[in-house]
Amino acid sequence: MSKPDYFEDFEVGATQKFGRYRVTREEILKFAAKYDPQPFHLSDEAAARTLFGSLCASGWHTCAMLMSMIVENMRGANKGALGSPGIDEVRWTKPVFPGDTLRVESTILDKKESRSRPEIGTVYMQNKVYNQNDELVMSNKPMVMFRKRNPG
Amino acid sequence: MSKPDYFEDFEVGATQKFGRYRVTREEILKFAAKYDPQPFHLSDEAAARTLFGSLCASGWHTCAMLMSMIVENMRGANKGALGSPGIDEVRWTKPVFPGDTLRVESTILDKKESRSRPEIGTVYMQNKVYNQNDELVMSNKPMVMFRKRNPG
Repeated sequence: MSKPDYFEDFEVGATQKFGRYRVTREEILKFAAKYDPQPFHLSDEAAARTLFGSLCASGWHTCAMLMSMIVENMRGANKGALGSPGIDEVRWTKPVFPGDTLRVESTILDKKESRSRPEIGTVYMQNKVYNQNDELVMSNKPMVMFRKRNPG
Repeated sequence: MSKPDYFEDFEVGATQKFGRYRVTREEILKFAAKYDPQPFHLSDEAAARTLFGSLCASGWHTCAMLMSMIVENMRGANKGALGSPGIDEVRWTKPVFPGDTLRVESTILDKKESRSRPEIGTVYMQNKVYNQNDELVMSNKPMVMFRKRNPG
């Protein structure tokens, strides 16, 4: 089956599984230093004094790694995607540690044609990110706009 | 007034204004190449064919820049923050373009003591990110856990 690309291609209830993102300590530190320099994202000692227990990735870094897996999965099927107006229910359920390997399960929750723009529609998804122990580390519910293959 | 740090310091209804983040084309391209390599985040030509009109930052990049301004603002008041279990209603309302300068208005919506952990509580916030023309480019509603200054 080819990957969904245009609005019509998305089937409510369908799930795609994809991605394999190896999380390195170096990348965690680099992202955190630039965008989220809180002590528990920069130092094992500081993290040991928190609920995290040891150095872990910024939640925004996990979002970015998820996006990277999504775009990688869209490769060859990126003519329809028009970006996202927003995301609901971002949840960080477990810390992401150096050495973790992440993967994604993405389910289509709903889809709606635009009333004002007949050539596009919005697809409502739920992404779940798991680590190598099949623990859910993050989830979110994005809205994504897609072109129609056959507008009107 | 000193910056809020511990759970007790946050006053429901209070708003802080802070941040000044100059968005460069180079940083937009670097973030997008690594985490969100969709054509409209990498090329003016591709972006011209979308609703964005011209090259704009990944929404996840805007989230990361917001976080950077938040952590910068917490400087000297970061003993209480314990990270976030999640974020609601992330909304990207306008594209962020090269040359934009972003700032934040952050309002405390609510706060709740933890029932299971008497030493911590959760603060519910709304962040709004504006560009140099005072246009709202992004908003979200994070939950953030804080230590209490005086537990029990």
